[in-house]
Amino acid sequence: MIIQFEQDIKESQKEAIINRIKGLKYKPAEVKTQMGEYLIGIGKKNFDIRSIGSMDGIKDIHIVSDDYKLVSKKWKVNATTIDLGDGIVIEDGGFQIMAGPCSIEGEDQIRKTIAHLKENGVSIMRGGVFKPRSSPYAFRGMGIEGLELWYQLAKEAGIKIVTEVMQVSQIEEMDPYVDIYQVGARNTQNFNLLDELGKNTDKPVMIKRGISGTIDELLYSAEYVFSAGNERLLLCERGIRTYEKATRNTMDLNAIAVLKEKTHLPVIADPSHGIGLRDFVEPIALASIMAGADGVIYETHEKPEEAYSDGQQTLNFPESAKLIDRMKKTFELRESF
Amino acid sequence: MIIQFEQDIKESQKEAIINRIKGLKYKPAEVKTQMGEYLIGIGKKNFDIRSIGSMDGIKDIHIVSDDYKLVSKKWKVNATTIDLGDGIVIEDGGFQIMAGPCSIEGEDQIRKTIAHLKENGVSIMRGGVFKPRSSPYAFRGMGIEGLELWYQLAKEAGIKIVTEVMQVSQIEEMDPYVDIYQVGARNTQNFNLLDELGKNTDKPVMIKRGISGTIDELLYSAEYVFSAGNERLLLCERGIRTYEKATRNTMDLNAIAVLKEKTHLPVIADPSHGIGLRDFVEPIALASIMAGADGVIYETHEKPEEAYSDGQQTLNFPESAKLIDRMKKTFELRESF
Amino acid sequence: MIIQFEQDIKESQKEAIINRIKGLKYKPAEVKTQMGEYLIGIGKKNFDIRSIGSMDGIKDIHIVSDDYKLVSKKWKVNATTIDLGDGIVIEDGGFQIMAGPCSIEGEDQIRKTIAHLKENGVSIMRGGVFKPRSSPYAFRGMGIEGLELWYQLAKEAGIKIVTEVMQVSQIEEMDPYVDIYQVGARNTQNFNLLDELGKNTDKPVMIKRGISGTIDELLYSAEYVFSAGNERLLLCERGIRTYEKATRNTMDLNAIAVLKEKTHLPVIADPSHGIGLRDFVEPIALASIMAGADGVIYETHEKPEEAYSDGQQTLNFPESAKLIDRMKKTFELRESF
Amino acid sequence: MIIQFEQDIKESQKEAIINRIKGLKYKPAEVKTQMGEYLIGIGKKNFDIRSIGSMDGIKDIHIVSDDYKLVSKKWKVNATTIDLGDGIVIEDGGFQIMAGPCSIEGEDQIRKTIAHLKENGVSIMRGGVFKPRSSPYAFRGMGIEGLELWYQLAKEAGIKIVTEVMQVSQIEEMDPYVDIYQVGARNTQNFNLLDELGKNTDKPVMIKRGISGTIDELLYSAEYVFSAGNERLLLCERGIRTYEKATRNTMDLNAIAVLKEKTHLPVIADPSHGIGLRDFVEPIALASIMAGADGVIYETHEKPEEAYSDGQQTLNFPESAKLIDRMKKTFELRESF
Repeated sequence: MIIQFEQDIKESQKEAIINRIKGLKYKPAEVKTQMGEYLIGIGKKNFDIRSIGSMDGIKDIHIVSDDYKLVSKKWKVNATTIDLGDGIVIEDGGFQIMAGPCSIEGEDQIRKTIAHLKENGVSIMRGGVFKPRSSPYAFRGMGIEGLELWYQLAKEAGIKIVTEVMQVSQIEEMDPYVDIYQVGARNTQNFNLLDELGKNTDKPVMIKRGISGTIDELLYSAEYVFSAGNERLLLCERGIRTYEKATRNTMDLNAIAVLKEKTHLPVIADPSHGIGLRDFVEPIALASIMAGADGVIYETHEKPEEAYSDGQQTLNFPESAKLIDRMKKTFELRESF
Repeated sequence: MIIQFEQDIKESQKEAIINRIKGLKYKPAEVKTQMGEYLIGIGKKNFDIRSIGSMDGIKDIHIVSDDYKLVSKKWKVNATTIDLGDGIVIEDGGFQIMAGPCSIEGEDQIRKTIAHLKENGVSIMRGGVFKPRSSPYAFRGMGIEGLELWYQLAKEAGIKIVTEVMQVSQIEEMDPYVDIYQVGARNTQNFNLLDELGKNTDKPVMIKRGISGTIDELLYSAEYVFSAGNERLLLCERGIRTYEKATRNTMDLNAIAVLKEKTHLPVIADPSHGIGLRDFVEPIALASIMAGADGVIYETHEKPEEAYSDGQQTLNFPESAKLIDRMKKTFELRESF
Repeated sequence: MIIQFEQDIKESQKEAIINRIKGLKYKPAEVKTQMGEYLIGIGKKNFDIRSIGSMDGIKDIHIVSDDYKLVSKKWKVNATTIDLGDGIVIEDGGFQIMAGPCSIEGEDQIRKTIAHLKENGVSIMRGGVFKPRSSPYAFRGMGIEGLELWYQLAKEAGIKIVTEVMQVSQIEEMDPYVDIYQVGARNTQNFNLLDELGKNTDKPVMIKRGISGTIDELLYSAEYVFSAGNERLLLCERGIRTYEKATRNTMDLNAIAVLKEKTHLPVIADPSHGIGLRDFVEPIALASIMAGADGVIYETHEKPEEAYSDGQQTLNFPESAKLIDRMKKTFELRESF
Repeated sequence: MIIQFEQDIKESQKEAIINRIKGLKYKPAEVKTQMGEYLIGIGKKNFDIRSIGSMDGIKDIHIVSDDYKLVSKKWKVNATTIDLGDGIVIEDGGFQIMAGPCSIEGEDQIRKTIAHLKENGVSIMRGGVFKPRSSPYAFRGMGIEGLELWYQLAKEAGIKIVTEVMQVSQIEEMDPYVDIYQVGARNTQNFNLLDELGKNTDKPVMIKRGISGTIDELLYSAEYVFSAGNERLLLCERGIRTYEKATRNTMDLNAIAVLKEKTHLPVIADPSHGIGLRDFVEPIALASIMAGADGVIYETHEKPEEAYSDGQQTLNFPESAKLIDRMKKTFELRESF
């Protein structure tokens, strides 16, 4: 069960509610986020919800039978909206595009990408400055200097930044320059990182599904950040690991459809990592929209064949422009249904 | 390599070509289908294609580096078209709908389904009369009597029939009543069945991807039927088995996009089995079209909750009608790109 | 529930029992095998087992909550023993070795293999004469002539034959020459083949687990053969398909341990296909014994590098001899526990 | 290629070697560990190894074609030995047992476990004080106080401690109390954590395979720690995620056999997590030894049914004692081969 407290609830009222919950053999967990205060009750017994709902200090009460609670669609009536400022909004039921290179490589590359995005009406740029790499000998990204440089150029252009954070100690230094933190597929169950992103920032966090994470595990990971204090969350489907090796990963569009029913959080599709082959990024991106995605994140580079990483799945600018146009039309059609 | 023989090729010419092929250390395999005669050369050595192409009796020659040959897109310039008669055509790049119940249950059910299809402009009806079931104690279908009954009613209404064949001995009895044979996911690598469907019928064959078959294995299975004589083939993506259990299967839309590049055969999507949950059949069907599917097959029943099998993934008629409308609009949008 | 009828049960007694079963809302299914007669009751309601058990004509009655019934360990008190004649027995809790080439290639190969087996005290020879191959252009085996030849030589030497049957029509021609039929991984859910192996032969049948079949599906497939009449069954773990590509398949030794608890049927391990790499056949074979296998089947050839198929996973004779010795010692240790 | 420098190599010699490497179009990476200094050369060109090997300052040079280098068996002639002091050694080809509860729960539990281990001749105790949990509302372990308490009791008894580290910031506080750090399956690709375990401790590190990590990814993760400075590494197979749900995970004994050939690092088997069901821990543990494991880690608790976590896969003390005895006998048999 989820109880949302009134903003002006008194300590004595809280105590009374907690005692009542315990009396029902529910285990209470208090959650205080940047937006509100909740009491989570973990348990299974049936009870009359009105007997609690009528207590003083309660704004709302919902039965949530899922094991994850705060991210469940069952208690949240309104669509979740994540406002990045300057009129740029990601929301449950809407559509946003995030595009850019796999790795941030330098000023020239950033400038060209920004110009391409602005020309095509895209407001959010993706790019990595801390790169998780299987091999310790591979390029690991430009680091915080790269992020600062990128931030200056993006800010001037009115472009928002989404980029990966790999560890707790990076949060503080990255925070001034980031509009959305990305948690990568290898860190989906890095619970310490999730906890800290709940406590130590008010910036939105986009959590990618694990390399072979289940849908429920993704929701649990979001519950970590939410229950630690940060409600501004996005989920991202980026392909799972299966036996099929004709594609880099198996983009799981089923998960997009299912997540849209299970959670109130916006769901973003990443076809670049999802299928991992340039020629198929477009059909999978368009398919993702029809499956229900609230946004698409993909890789584009002026010269994919010269990109520091992931060139094989990166679109050049003309391909990217064509994709943007088609995604908009596909979203319009979905909206018309 | 694939050599297509002239229709009036002489035996002596054939022999000369085969000898030349052997001289190149290629292993020759003669293939005679209902539509033409081919010589497949299996080997890896480089050679000057013109030195063979200019020999008498050769209509066409192509290098096909894939391990599957006749089903590869590399040699076939024109789209494959499968004409079912009465103006009903399935083709590479087009769009057809196949709908109906999981199991054929009786006359009333057949009549109602046909009426529903005709009202909504659908020309092909699916349904099972031989049902592969994990448990020997489950309902195994109405058998050949069911098929005969269905055929009478469908023929009157101008509706075509697609239905599963489970074993070699059924081909002869089924053949008068079938418009498209379906090979089920458990029989994708039943090589004897594939061979016989190549030799003993000229009806089209739709091969479903194995429970956890690779894309290449599906193409090889099609190569079996083609090389045994029957070129009228369709492939069907119906979900694969993965670790994720939130959905019945993991519908692999990546495979649709990839198959459209690898083969000239039409590719059909089966969202009902693919995701296995009624609420998500629509988004996955629409997504499949954007991924490139040439058709969609799905399950519909007047009263899904009373269906003999697969009720949990079956649409009722109003849901089906809405889906048909949206699929057509989605295909139109894809066509406009 | 499983009711075993008395051998001399009267029709009227049977009828009374069936009526009583139906009265309990259980769905009855009569099963007549070569060894006995059973009544399977499919249902969930609780009832007092004694109220039925005391009826005339009943030898034994058991509650079996599993969805598979006759193959479940829950009703069978004694270990299942499969007697091949000449003192060669495969049994639940024992240990037998089956070895030989992937494909039967000719007289010389057969003779040498038999000599090797006899020298090392192995009584069952494996080999394929009908080969399921992904590509229609690959070697498909010597066929029935190969089997006849093999049979002559094996019979003289007192060696038993285990070989794959691929389709219904082969049963009749193969039956005189086969000691154990093998159902391959691609045919585990070829239900027609399973049915016929239940009805039309009294030879034992070894069913391999599907390419990515579940443990339960394997048990259901055995239930098909059993309920169609043939109780002489073996199961075989041969590796499953996973994302890991360092090995050909992922030999699932967990399945061996689990099957030994779920079923009374003997369980055989196939490390050659299971891991698919010669160097690792020995450790996986020995591990299988510790996991509980009642036998091991593996591939050996005088010159693996010249074998028609599967050479990469085939042991030469000295490796095979060493393996046999170590398997026996490992089984002895297990026996001592 | 891996070049091991002489201990007293001069800077000028190093420079000369690096220049020669670059001249061969190999990318050099200098590695300094607690035990030695290496130069890794990343490249593919063939060259005469003697032309470099004869240069001053080089102790040893090896071609290592694998993408991982320092953990490869190709360059290391001697078995890797990890000495924990007090005569307790884990080594390539040997056998060690690590046992204990899933979670450390308190003094009484620790004392009883230690007594059980000492009675049965086990020298290393496992247990978690920082617990990674899917749900934020679950028990997350006793933390550093639990570790301090455990350390006092273990030290008195001469028992070594292996326990999981979840994040960089824990290393410093844990270091005095830990004998082996465990990196959990969810952190196998937490590259920052791996880096720090290479730089900031000289304690051995046992890296578990990822939830669905490949064998190569596990080796790469070890390469991270090694190349950051810490050579004292163990690998642990703990089951992978597959479609099969009859067991918690699919313990991959194939990986043990393969790893023993690919790397010089000791490989430990974790049957408790691997199969996840108490009844099958013993057969899988014994099988792991036959597959080549250098040690087994498993969960035991005085009263598994009251354990804070993982009770369903935890052995009670009599089961544990029986397992220890059988493991020793199984290892003896393997040793005799």
